[in-house]
Amino acid sequence: MKLIALDSSGLVASVAVLEDDNFIAEYTIQYKKTHSQTLLCMLDEVKKMTELDLSTIDAIAIASGPGSFTGLRIGSATAKGLGLALDIPIIEVPTVEGMAYRMCGAGDIVCPMMDARRNEVYTGLFTFHASKPYDEMETVLPQCAIPVAELIARCNALGRRVVFLGDGVPVYKGMLEQGLTVPYGFAPPHLNRQSALAVGSLGMRYYEQGRYVTADQHAPDYLRLSQAERERREKRLT
Amino acid sequence: MKLIALDSSGLVASVAVLEDDNFIAEYTIQYKKTHSQTLLCMLDEVKKMTELDLSTIDAIAIASGPGSFTGLRIGSATAKGLGLALDIPIIEVPTVEGMAYRMCGAGDIVCPMMDARRNEVYTGLFTFHASKPYDEMETVLPQCAIPVAELIARCNALGRRVVFLGDGVPVYKGMLEQGLTVPYGFAPPHLNRQSALAVGSLGMRYYEQGRYVTADQHAPDYLRLSQAERERREKRLT
Repeated sequence: MKLIALDSSGLVASVAVLEDDNFIAEYTIQYKKTHSQTLLCMLDEVKKMTELDLSTIDAIAIASGPGSFTGLRIGSATAKGLGLALDIPIIEVPTVEGMAYRMCGAGDIVCPMMDARRNEVYTGLFTFHASKPYDEMETVLPQCAIPVAELIARCNALGRRVVFLGDGVPVYKGMLEQGLTVPYGFAPPHLNRQSALAVGSLGMRYYEQGRYVTADQHAPDYLRLSQAERERREKRLT
Repeated sequence: MKLIALDSSGLVASVAVLEDDNFIAEYTIQYKKTHSQTLLCMLDEVKKMTELDLSTIDAIAIASGPGSFTGLRIGSATAKGLGLALDIPIIEVPTVEGMAYRMCGAGDIVCPMMDARRNEVYTGLFTFHASKPYDEMETVLPQCAIPVAELIARCNALGRRVVFLGDGVPVYKGMLEQGLTVPYGFAPPHLNRQSALAVGSLGMRYYEQGRYVTADQHAPDYLRLSQAERERREKRLT
């Protein structure tokens, strides 16, 4: 089982190639270029460096949202193009789950948070149990878009240490530090953003469970309406 | 504080660029090419993709051993070359510590194991405490070369679940499964090998603690004599 994984849901652009219990390559950047300048070039670079024959790929795993609308569209367009050309399925990995899975085996509650603007975050809460298989992640709060204040209240109600990661951390760090009554920490640089390798690793599990769609069926999950759609809807209602 | 991190201690070739609490890039492959074919090309690729000005780099972090003798020499030669040319220090990160740090925040004992041949592994045991700063790693057994049987006995004595990672896992999985009396698990694909990003992330901490050397002083730590050196010594003794 060999797959290509992509994550362009945020500022990070990330591609990875995995085979069974191992990885062949990961290339991730966090830089001010747009994903249309980076994602396909990075995949091509990895393909050349590892002499990858695309016809051997069994599926494409993609961080399927939420995230930046443009970023998600570039990622999904790339995944759909590859999926249609190679006639292989797409594994849709919810962005927040992929981020949490990066910290597989963490002793604390894992809370990815992506800045969704207007004091909201795309977030979720996850744990790993000492009594369960090592790589099994349990969802405490499924991914959603909620106000930061509500996330803080939910963390406080859990009564356990929470570790935060994602681009929402630098934006809302002050609010977290003021509002949290439970112990907390912040993921170090090597774990604190999106990674296609984690998306692929979790995608591998989903594939085994039959959780995939055709390239034709795949669409990103924006989780919220875009600003343009919101404004249009509001105009209609007034 | 900006640094380049390198790990070529095993089959994996990995380069990363970090800045303060964040990363700019990571490029990692696990492929049958030699590090002399990959490491500098990968660094050059990352440099171009992220428009990196080498004169802004403050230090080089390197997985300084143990590992493949040739791999360590290629990594150290690269680090020394960059360090001398840019007149910046080198942060020597013990390979096994860098691997363990990849699982920062793990709820279990973390045990990297690299195949050192002759039924021995380069290994060590590490934990992260819920009551300590999130990114603080505690050493239970410092990195060393020991027989697999001795490692198993040490794990069993701890009475806690252990998670294994590294290229020693597929080689000695049978021995582990037979010998371990404590619960155990294996790291998933996105966490189970070397990563320059983890080396850089831990290196950042070491730098803050003043743990670095000049490029001139740096040398890899092989931890054991090479086969040629062993044979020469044995010949002398007989």
